[in-house]
Amino acid sequence: MTERKLILVTNDDSVNASGIHALVDVATQFGDVVVVAPDKPQSGMGHAITINHPLRLNEVNLFGQTKAYSCSGTPVDCVKLAIYEVLHRKPDLILSGINHGENSSTNVLYSGTMSAAIEGAMEGISSIGFSLADYDANADFEPTKYFSAKIIEKALNSNFPKGICLNVNVPKLKIPEIKGIKICKQAHAFWEDRFEKRLDQFGRPYYWLSGEFSDEDKREDTDLHMLKNGYVSIVPTLYDLTAYEKMNEFENWKL
Amino acid sequence: MTERKLILVTNDDSVNASGIHALVDVATQFGDVVVVAPDKPQSGMGHAITINHPLRLNEVNLFGQTKAYSCSGTPVDCVKLAIYEVLHRKPDLILSGINHGENSSTNVLYSGTMSAAIEGAMEGISSIGFSLADYDANADFEPTKYFSAKIIEKALNSNFPKGICLNVNVPKLKIPEIKGIKICKQAHAFWEDRFEKRLDQFGRPYYWLSGEFSDEDKREDTDLHMLKNGYVSIVPTLYDLTAYEKMNEFENWKL
Repeated sequence: MTERKLILVTNDDSVNASGIHALVDVATQFGDVVVVAPDKPQSGMGHAITINHPLRLNEVNLFGQTKAYSCSGTPVDCVKLAIYEVLHRKPDLILSGINHGENSSTNVLYSGTMSAAIEGAMEGISSIGFSLADYDANADFEPTKYFSAKIIEKALNSNFPKGICLNVNVPKLKIPEIKGIKICKQAHAFWEDRFEKRLDQFGRPYYWLSGEFSDEDKREDTDLHMLKNGYVSIVPTLYDLTAYEKMNEFENWKL
Repeated sequence: MTERKLILVTNDDSVNASGIHALVDVATQFGDVVVVAPDKPQSGMGHAITINHPLRLNEVNLFGQTKAYSCSGTPVDCVKLAIYEVLHRKPDLILSGINHGENSSTNVLYSGTMSAAIEGAMEGISSIGFSLADYDANADFEPTKYFSAKIIEKALNSNFPKGICLNVNVPKLKIPEIKGIKICKQAHAFWEDRFEKRLDQFGRPYYWLSGEFSDEDKREDTDLHMLKNGYVSIVPTLYDLTAYEKMNEFENWKL
């Protein structure tokens, strides 16, 4: 008999988000699940860690039989606290999400969901972030649950290369409309930022970040391209940011 | 006559840190400098952006003749606000730092200093993060000033590949002790996290992130190795996290 797997579930939308409840439903089919997730929304926190404040960790009764904790910190804090203070060992798998909103392309850098998975990869743990291209708090998570179960099953029964995590994005479509799953490249698409400048009650300006996402990447094997064409995208994602192929160019600077 | 370059300077230690004043001293030798940096320390904020709160931006008179603004957000917010609300154009160069403390190896992911530079690369701007391996608020920035001037001069007069920024770390040594500058790979070294668990005045637990950095990467061309051996390290750093070389392995999962 194989030992049951230990699976850590986290996210960036907090323990109260529907997405993490959907993911826990799936995860419990595959092993013993423990949830450690933020106590409040942490979208856009990227790979932030809390170093200048203490962290709080509280057991919460929000996931039925599944042991769960809310943490006052960021998604990356949750992963660290889970390993070192809750589980006291490395789990067999870390699942992050299901995020309310797409984390394709360069959004991987801003995403708390994906930063938790990247932190997992740094710890040598097989880690997957799941995101649904639908920002609605009441989004339909059934298609993402269906595809995430397929991916988790493969992840647990295949060789999962070290130092890499998966960035899974699911289009806002019904299951029969989704054409399949594709291994993709991170699209080189960017936010065209805008700030809304407004005045507060004292006449002092403040700025809200806004903008539009613009995809000028013409490649057809990117996550954005595949999502637009009705596929679930998976980008194998590194924590090693070295531009290996450009090292020569800088060596030629002869510094 | 060549037009003077427009240089944006930011950091994560705030407008009050000695390190950014040292970097502005250097930058003003090479062009017209504008500072947009956090109004309070933002170390460890990674690539976080502020989406759920408004941002404040205030002109500050801390850098002599150099126009400077403090921002209530993260280093990445500073870069975005600088481009879209202060400069109203992309600068020719973004310099971030000088950070009080090393940002070698996987620290690049947690570092607000380097995330500002990565954001610059995403905007298509030549960007460099500088860090000194000395956490002291009164650290000696002279060696870093000396080497950063050499690097900035080359950056402005060479082809700077798009989509890449530089992660420059300077060892805590005097100028004659530093052996030179090396183009390096990001070391695969990690924090062995620990949390100090303490009880507050009500007997409730809180946790402080702590730990030790452990380098088991045996390669001799990494930033950590070069820093330990007395060199300034430069890692060309990507925002594209795709694990191109591992895509096949996941394609073999036949999802």
